[in-house]
Amino acid sequence: MAKLGVSVIGGSGYTGAELLRILVRHARVRIRHVTSRELSGTPVSQRLPNLNWLDMQYEMPVPKQLSDSDVVFVCTPHTSSMEIVPEVLEHCRVVDISADYRLADRKLYEEIYEVKHTSPQLKSVYGLPELHRNEIASADLVANPGCYPTGAVLALAPLVRKALIEDDRIIIDAKSGSSGAGIKPTAFTSHAECANAVKPYNVTGHRHIAEIDQELSLVAGKDVRVNFTPHLVPISRGILTTCHTFPTGKVTEDKVRSLFTDFYKDCPFVRIRPEVPDLRGVLGSNFCDIGFSIDARTGRLVVVSAIDNLTKGASGQAVQNMNIMFKLPETLGLDSLGLYP
Amino acid sequence: MAKLGVSVIGGSGYTGAELLRILVRHARVRIRHVTSRELSGTPVSQRLPNLNWLDMQYEMPVPKQLSDSDVVFVCTPHTSSMEIVPEVLEHCRVVDISADYRLADRKLYEEIYEVKHTSPQLKSVYGLPELHRNEIASADLVANPGCYPTGAVLALAPLVRKALIEDDRIIIDAKSGSSGAGIKPTAFTSHAECANAVKPYNVTGHRHIAEIDQELSLVAGKDVRVNFTPHLVPISRGILTTCHTFPTGKVTEDKVRSLFTDFYKDCPFVRIRPEVPDLRGVLGSNFCDIGFSIDARTGRLVVVSAIDNLTKGASGQAVQNMNIMFKLPETLGLDSLGLYP
Amino acid sequence: MAKLGVSVIGGSGYTGAELLRILVRHARVRIRHVTSRELSGTPVSQRLPNLNWLDMQYEMPVPKQLSDSDVVFVCTPHTSSMEIVPEVLEHCRVVDISADYRLADRKLYEEIYEVKHTSPQLKSVYGLPELHRNEIASADLVANPGCYPTGAVLALAPLVRKALIEDDRIIIDAKSGSSGAGIKPTAFTSHAECANAVKPYNVTGHRHIAEIDQELSLVAGKDVRVNFTPHLVPISRGILTTCHTFPTGKVTEDKVRSLFTDFYKDCPFVRIRPEVPDLRGVLGSNFCDIGFSIDARTGRLVVVSAIDNLTKGASGQAVQNMNIMFKLPETLGLDSLGLYP
Amino acid sequence: MAKLGVSVIGGSGYTGAELLRILVRHARVRIRHVTSRELSGTPVSQRLPNLNWLDMQYEMPVPKQLSDSDVVFVCTPHTSSMEIVPEVLEHCRVVDISADYRLADRKLYEEIYEVKHTSPQLKSVYGLPELHRNEIASADLVANPGCYPTGAVLALAPLVRKALIEDDRIIIDAKSGSSGAGIKPTAFTSHAECANAVKPYNVTGHRHIAEIDQELSLVAGKDVRVNFTPHLVPISRGILTTCHTFPTGKVTEDKVRSLFTDFYKDCPFVRIRPEVPDLRGVLGSNFCDIGFSIDARTGRLVVVSAIDNLTKGASGQAVQNMNIMFKLPETLGLDSLGLYP
Repeated sequence: MAKLGVSVIGGSGYTGAELLRILVRHARVRIRHVTSRELSGTPVSQRLPNLNWLDMQYEMPVPKQLSDSDVVFVCTPHTSSMEIVPEVLEHCRVVDISADYRLADRKLYEEIYEVKHTSPQLKSVYGLPELHRNEIASADLVANPGCYPTGAVLALAPLVRKALIEDDRIIIDAKSGSSGAGIKPTAFTSHAECANAVKPYNVTGHRHIAEIDQELSLVAGKDVRVNFTPHLVPISRGILTTCHTFPTGKVTEDKVRSLFTDFYKDCPFVRIRPEVPDLRGVLGSNFCDIGFSIDARTGRLVVVSAIDNLTKGASGQAVQNMNIMFKLPETLGLDSLGLYP
Repeated sequence: MAKLGVSVIGGSGYTGAELLRILVRHARVRIRHVTSRELSGTPVSQRLPNLNWLDMQYEMPVPKQLSDSDVVFVCTPHTSSMEIVPEVLEHCRVVDISADYRLADRKLYEEIYEVKHTSPQLKSVYGLPELHRNEIASADLVANPGCYPTGAVLALAPLVRKALIEDDRIIIDAKSGSSGAGIKPTAFTSHAECANAVKPYNVTGHRHIAEIDQELSLVAGKDVRVNFTPHLVPISRGILTTCHTFPTGKVTEDKVRSLFTDFYKDCPFVRIRPEVPDLRGVLGSNFCDIGFSIDARTGRLVVVSAIDNLTKGASGQAVQNMNIMFKLPETLGLDSLGLYP
Repeated sequence: MAKLGVSVIGGSGYTGAELLRILVRHARVRIRHVTSRELSGTPVSQRLPNLNWLDMQYEMPVPKQLSDSDVVFVCTPHTSSMEIVPEVLEHCRVVDISADYRLADRKLYEEIYEVKHTSPQLKSVYGLPELHRNEIASADLVANPGCYPTGAVLALAPLVRKALIEDDRIIIDAKSGSSGAGIKPTAFTSHAECANAVKPYNVTGHRHIAEIDQELSLVAGKDVRVNFTPHLVPISRGILTTCHTFPTGKVTEDKVRSLFTDFYKDCPFVRIRPEVPDLRGVLGSNFCDIGFSIDARTGRLVVVSAIDNLTKGASGQAVQNMNIMFKLPETLGLDSLGLYP
Repeated sequence: MAKLGVSVIGGSGYTGAELLRILVRHARVRIRHVTSRELSGTPVSQRLPNLNWLDMQYEMPVPKQLSDSDVVFVCTPHTSSMEIVPEVLEHCRVVDISADYRLADRKLYEEIYEVKHTSPQLKSVYGLPELHRNEIASADLVANPGCYPTGAVLALAPLVRKALIEDDRIIIDAKSGSSGAGIKPTAFTSHAECANAVKPYNVTGHRHIAEIDQELSLVAGKDVRVNFTPHLVPISRGILTTCHTFPTGKVTEDKVRSLFTDFYKDCPFVRIRPEVPDLRGVLGSNFCDIGFSIDARTGRLVVVSAIDNLTKGASGQAVQNMNIMFKLPETLGLDSLGLYP
């Protein structure tokens, strides 16, 4: 069977690395170009310790040379993607892993990312397949969701759609591994500063809030504003998202379980668990595990989701989107199981 | 100056170890006995790698031999303490680190710990000095607080006293190191099962909830029921407690800061920080660092506290209580600074 | 194409879990039985967080029921395997992951493992494909190597075969993750005791020494006795083996590189690296990465190997052996790349 | 009693932070100045999370203003110290924590650090108190040892002095925490790159080798060249040093134990342990724990030492040197015990 021509722009960081880990084993993919301005001319094998046998070199990104590709994954940082995506789109379809096309409200994007959007007119689809599968199938530009929004929205969407919870008392307390901060060394993510710490950051003002609000508002059919606080924990991969919610009426375990099971019945990567998950089941995989617990004393409903921030929270989801865009089986190339223990 | 005679019952676990680490350097303490049923006859130096020079042996616990002690720290597990405390109290004052005398409502204790309380009549004082300093000073039996309640109550008491927040929408999302589970090896806390995970547990039913409710209700002058969820994170020491609260009226940063600063102005171990703390400032120390952030979008007020679960969350606080009970400077022997990095 | 019937005896521990992670994705395998005395009747999905969708139950081990299997992997502890292997061998071929059949000198086994061998007469092949591929192909009973011997023997075999190094001054300093100790909780491997430590253990007397000596002696054609010391480091997976050796004559980087490249030219899982490896390239994969450095001051030649102790060091290698035994491509089902970062 | 005036040049990095952690609790010290070119004007409390109550500001380093100090600790990087030490020495005594004055052979220094030494004529004493206590007492300039040399030399000196081991077959395999690399963020020491790895580096060419050779040669009375390889392990603090040695004659456990016990009988910070140590006993303390094991099969003698790289391996040892220089009790201010667990 014919293979898709696939290229990766910005292939030296963690989302690029994770994409390559997946793509080199994908049965229907031929990798055409992997670009990196900094490492152009360097073998990919030299940069990525797990791909040390791969016979490819980093190239400079040249959009017109991408015409041999059916799809391009753009892994450049926020605000860099929008510089290159319009030109790439002239040659092929795009999955953009940055934040540049995630917010439908481009003005809000400009406010949050403190930059002028240079291609606000481009039409994009928010690439969370569990909510937007059909639109993704026909999209030319898919804006791959952020890692935190993926974990949070999947945990909350079923409840919000049915208006089962107070929508002004949704608390999302997330715990993320250090790879989520990207590959650039910083004081915040250096090993000695993280190894024995749990570090809350952007406690009431993380940029991903707007994405979560956008998607949950869409699901709810009304404005929803969540309360979100992320923490850095000393693991390299994974996001555990603890959602504290308050039902508006009586809920039972059976009712909640049915709700989630039904909502995700056609979603191969969402697993509803009998108990709340931890991260051991999902690391290195594209699964999102979800479980919940009802607080008999206070009525609170706690929903917990677990994802690998680089896989379902970034590059795995990007490949899932590609599969959908090109009518391939949604799980193709994404059959890796969580690395346990 | 005369030294206090001090003994430790149950000196082979983590709270016992931490007590000894502090007591051997305490200028006004002479350690009389360290007991352990399992290790009786074994040198303490053989069990505790950091005290490998200490010239003492574990003994069998024999209450009447404790009459040479002014105070005894009881570090045995829940439900074991109440078997020994009454007899010990005939000879000296007691700081009990177990949960056995923390809940004033002994019936509630019996319900939660699923055991008959064998000495419900004993009068005890809840040993959180920041709330009960005067009663501690004259108490014969101090019930040392649990680790989670210490972090949570200190973060919330000022707000609850002033009724500044909705008291039915208090969410406490806590992250604890593995030493909090005690020294007994379990599948839950084995290294391979924890190293790459964040594990929520007892998501809506942790035993410490009753303590938090008891103390906050006392502070509030009315019934308060908190929403508490603990998580195990891959660090050995420390609890970071993220409290999500919703002010009933308008709050400003200045107002909240003044409130906390005033509330703790005579409390040498509580430090109000300009920003939310992480754990790097408190590990190995008796400090509780507190900071907060106001969510401009939703009104939420997030208060974060950081403690070392074995020090301020257990044995350091026990020594702080001893200092108060015997009119010593509250900080004596507790001047260790956090181990950073 | 017809699939192999495969069963796993002792499927609840870490080597069993890792086997299942690999086997469920192996294109030519049908899993027939997974046994566990302790968990018999329990769904596998309940025990293994990464296989939480798998529709199988643990069964009691009943050898005669294994006649529907072409090959059985035995993952029971040392000294338990030899109780069951003889009977299983009447029905199908066996890859035994325990130590019971690794040492050709069964008397030495009895001495080291302090037990009487109950089936010393069984003929077994040491399952290190890089040294014994042909014998493995026709073996009925393959004794899968220990994790430390795999890392050490692969790093040293080329040098020893050519007698390039002093064979009485071979120092093997190994660093292993905690999963190597197995799933049973112990004080040695509990998280709080490991998280901030590097722990040497069995410093001069680890049981795996005999295996390393056996294989290197075979390669050398003379008796070799290595100096081996293992350390526990706070990671869950992986063994980094640092071999300090002293060349008997002059060696150059080119010469050593050629030697290793030639030696492993037909070995798809051994990668000779331009620099010494660390573990990031191999975790979750079946690769063994090898690199070296020559000490210009002293003449010392340092060879470093990196493996995942559960994959190439145990279950991955077991599947590699199965592939060889059944004339399948050696890499089938073993194409997972290292999880980086 | 009068206090020493003490200043710290370069107080924003890890050795500066550790010095301050110790000095603020030292009964005979008054801190005069803490300098940092980058943070001049910033409160120390803002930079160091564990000293968040300290009422001091970073200043620009101005040597002549240091005349109010009896001793100055210089914590600037290698090659920067020699720019400032000569001028500081005109005003007070100096303990230099950099490498600039450690090597008596200044030419060798220039070769290794690839820089011209600008004050080669300055007389310095190598600040390892266990070997040079008397010279330190009267020195004006003490060159504080490197972290690796401290662990290695203390483990080997007794054996080398008695010529008990082959001096051309000394292998030192060291495992260090990430704080040893300093505070500057790098790709090598970022959390995501370290968390699941053991990373050998400078495998045959680490700069500290010259120091180890210098000191052991001095002890031996002849040239000694060691074989040294360091590894980065995922802990923040601590160095475990495994020394593999080959006795020239017969050694017994008693003989080795007596040798070490005698050698260190007046050394309060060296503890000879019944078994090989791990790091749990020394973290945050100034102790060096040493143990050993004799390999009955090969004759090898393995000596293991454990230190905290920032304390005994840097700033604790610097304070120990200060105590000796000013005739204070050697252990003053250094009574912190290891943080266990």
